[in-house]
Amino acid sequence: MPLKDNTETILKNRVLVDVALDPISRKMYLELDPPSLSDNQGDLDRVLDVLNKNHAGISCPLGLMNKVSAVLRQANWQATFTLALFGGQWQVIDVEPGNQTTSQFGLAVDIGTTTVVGYLIDLTTGGVLCTAADYNGQIRFGEDILSRIQAAGDPLGRQAMQYAVVETLNVIIRRLVGQQQIDNQHISAVTVGANTTMVHLLLGLDPERICMAPYIPLVNRPGYIKASELGLTVNPEAPLYCLPGVGSYVGGDIIGGVLASGMHKKPEVALFVDIGTNGEMVLGGQEWLTACSGAAGPALEGGVARHGMRAEPGAVYQVRIDQETGRVEYQTVGGQQAVGICGSGLVDCLAELLLAGIINRAGKFKDGRTEFVVVPATETGTGADVTFTQTDINNIMRTKGAVNAALEYLLESVGCGMDDIEAFYAAGAFGQYLDLESAVTIGLYPDLPREKMIRLGNSSGEGARLALISNQCRQEAEELLRSITYFELNASEAFMNKFVGSKFLPHTNLDYYPTVKEKLIRRGLVTE
Amino acid sequence: MPLKDNTETILKNRVLVDVALDPISRKMYLELDPPSLSDNQGDLDRVLDVLNKNHAGISCPLGLMNKVSAVLRQANWQATFTLALFGGQWQVIDVEPGNQTTSQFGLAVDIGTTTVVGYLIDLTTGGVLCTAADYNGQIRFGEDILSRIQAAGDPLGRQAMQYAVVETLNVIIRRLVGQQQIDNQHISAVTVGANTTMVHLLLGLDPERICMAPYIPLVNRPGYIKASELGLTVNPEAPLYCLPGVGSYVGGDIIGGVLASGMHKKPEVALFVDIGTNGEMVLGGQEWLTACSGAAGPALEGGVARHGMRAEPGAVYQVRIDQETGRVEYQTVGGQQAVGICGSGLVDCLAELLLAGIINRAGKFKDGRTEFVVVPATETGTGADVTFTQTDINNIMRTKGAVNAALEYLLESVGCGMDDIEAFYAAGAFGQYLDLESAVTIGLYPDLPREKMIRLGNSSGEGARLALISNQCRQEAEELLRSITYFELNASEAFMNKFVGSKFLPHTNLDYYPTVKEKLIRRGLVTE
Repeated sequence: MPLKDNTETILKNRVLVDVALDPISRKMYLELDPPSLSDNQGDLDRVLDVLNKNHAGISCPLGLMNKVSAVLRQANWQATFTLALFGGQWQVIDVEPGNQTTSQFGLAVDIGTTTVVGYLIDLTTGGVLCTAADYNGQIRFGEDILSRIQAAGDPLGRQAMQYAVVETLNVIIRRLVGQQQIDNQHISAVTVGANTTMVHLLLGLDPERICMAPYIPLVNRPGYIKASELGLTVNPEAPLYCLPGVGSYVGGDIIGGVLASGMHKKPEVALFVDIGTNGEMVLGGQEWLTACSGAAGPALEGGVARHGMRAEPGAVYQVRIDQETGRVEYQTVGGQQAVGICGSGLVDCLAELLLAGIINRAGKFKDGRTEFVVVPATETGTGADVTFTQTDINNIMRTKGAVNAALEYLLESVGCGMDDIEAFYAAGAFGQYLDLESAVTIGLYPDLPREKMIRLGNSSGEGARLALISNQCRQEAEELLRSITYFELNASEAFMNKFVGSKFLPHTNLDYYPTVKEKLIRRGLVTE
Repeated sequence: MPLKDNTETILKNRVLVDVALDPISRKMYLELDPPSLSDNQGDLDRVLDVLNKNHAGISCPLGLMNKVSAVLRQANWQATFTLALFGGQWQVIDVEPGNQTTSQFGLAVDIGTTTVVGYLIDLTTGGVLCTAADYNGQIRFGEDILSRIQAAGDPLGRQAMQYAVVETLNVIIRRLVGQQQIDNQHISAVTVGANTTMVHLLLGLDPERICMAPYIPLVNRPGYIKASELGLTVNPEAPLYCLPGVGSYVGGDIIGGVLASGMHKKPEVALFVDIGTNGEMVLGGQEWLTACSGAAGPALEGGVARHGMRAEPGAVYQVRIDQETGRVEYQTVGGQQAVGICGSGLVDCLAELLLAGIINRAGKFKDGRTEFVVVPATETGTGADVTFTQTDINNIMRTKGAVNAALEYLLESVGCGMDDIEAFYAAGAFGQYLDLESAVTIGLYPDLPREKMIRLGNSSGEGARLALISNQCRQEAEELLRSITYFELNASEAFMNKFVGSKFLPHTNLDYYPTVKEKLIRRGLVTE
């Protein structure tokens, strides 16, 4: 079923980063002098010489040459040329009779392990025209990254997974062009924000070594691919550009997020966090940047908690527990009868159980029970209780521990403290629906002044949009790879030690979380 | 049957133009640091970063990415990369384990309307390793350019003709790699010298307007094509570069000839002539260059004269007639019994008939006969006389008249006289076997001091070789297009007038041909 779209989030984000419109593909309308005995330039040479004045070194693929000539002659030497930038090289990628410059489209996509979101962009304004989302067709090969990498072990599996995600993209494209009543052929560029494994699987590249020490991807900067090489149903000559990654576990989706936050261009120290299976984070500003990824585990994704599920109808996404009465209030997606709990609901459960004094800071039920009934069987759509178990709590604690540990590792590596963080950016669809206070309460997000905490929404998709509409942003993305210091935590003993040390709520050191400490004191749950 | 090869000619020509070896494709052997936890560059990024130091902006096609990684890891990070220049952009086009830099090959080809010649080039020296030639497989669609253009009128015919010449090239490639015992895959670049129509047909481009006023080709500078786009059996990622043309009737073969002559870099005024169906010529030097093409007609090609044939076994290629006795001496290709007369034999016949006083300067048999028996039936392989007819004479006179007229047109257009020509370059396989004195005698070549007259052999193939081994030469070729003033004679009344005026042997104005005049006087055939 199509997911909720993020259009508004994306549009809102545009104020964060103000870019000049300079898209990867564009149209130019030319009125050419017809040839004559005294001006015998070849048809194509005539066009390229004019285009060359603004787009040096421009070339035309063989497959378009006959069409260029035919259209020019049919249209009385007045035609619109679509140009696209492949790295440093401009290419003609389409020709149409007459002036067609008003309709120019690009596609920005966020390819997540679970969800793929496509944004149809109007390249004359840079804005989002419409959005479509769907589950990643690769899910049938495994829910998580590791099982996808395993399935890609042989070339046939790799090919099957490539087809799967391309088919997902093509479904999304069909939906987008249907909504706007435009021709696929008029989508003249595609940009992708995705984690390193998703980029490998999209391009049919062997991802095997991403999950083996020393965790080296086949490529971090795949450059520019022709859409036809992947079978995308857009202009076959269109460039596809994947935002580059920093390493196996900090991919183009994170670089896109940094672009969308603008943190790399501001003097203040900022923290960018994207929590999914991995808790990826980037710390720094215009002077320096560091990044790492802590294997957070899938505790907050659908299907891991006893009654965990994706944010689909019937999923409990908000929970409040009254400290006095122990009474539970909850909201479900679509207002339907509860059938499970999605990620933001799980975070709420854990935070509220702590604040209600039902569990202690070590995450244990004080009365020794093994589960908490969030929704009694009488109110559920399944006829059984929807519960939140001790095992669920332990899993989420591990996830937030990994995030804590990664942040501490980064802070220590640059000699900063929590106080030095001037801005916090929460990325990802998960970050979008999560209750900020609950995330701070359990220590998943740092306890900063709330005005410094900004939700980015789908910042991977927004980064892709920026890369699509701004050559400057694409250049910044490439430069980020050189300026970001990446720490590979998969093999770090220091990280493991911190991970072990972060087993309390919100943190072993409560002073890191002043507002949570205050709440707990107010409720008599801890003493000063 | 394979044609005689031109290897020696090509090798000899190398003294005319001395170029620094800077080939379009080349190999680089790299010993890379293996990745580690502290150096987590992607496999491909690791390679490209090193290659980038010498080849800025280098990229790698998607189809090679998995191979690059696999070879690097298999070969312990020591591998040889083949790089090729596509316009301004370097690309990785192959990777091999270990150091393979000693074997680097390129293919230079001359695609003539009749004959295709391939030269296998050692890119480590720039020299020709071996040569193979064959008839252009398009001949079955018509011997001459016009019938080919007609056959290309519909897309299927165009495709069939493209396949035909690609198949010819693939046969030649098979023969070349067989001779040298190398792998096709190791041919990493292809350059082509060909007339404008042949370039269009090779690339599958519509040539229709080449033969319709105002005679505009679809393209003069087709740029760089991937070998796989044409189906050439070399490295599929290899660049194919066609020498650019100046116009519909002065193509890349002529630009290649200019490159091979070096006339564009010398202060003196030189004349370059290539006589085939069209008599193409270029006049000038480093200060200025002009070019045109006079439709010479196929009189000197096989199959037009009554007993005309290609330079195959049994073809009369040399003729001497004793003025006293009228006795004919002749030589045949392969020393076999005569079966016909090839182009150089036809020129010899005409010259010798004039010098023997058998025809007058208007090209008419003085005794009113209609043909001359070159080889009597008793000596031929056909059992019939091999003759040279009045019609044959008239045809050749028209051809040489077109050449005269074109030259006069060029000279007049720049305000030069015949005396200003300091060097004469005779191009083409025809120019190679032709008797120089006979060509001057009939007025086909100008009457210059003989030491100023240089045979270039297959200068189209040699130009292709230069373009293959020297980026500087390729740049010069592109610049020539801008510096050459092209005159389209197909629609020129002035040309037609001169054409009509050139109907005597060697020329209406005998003073243009002082050595011929002297010979004729000495023989009592004209008076002073």
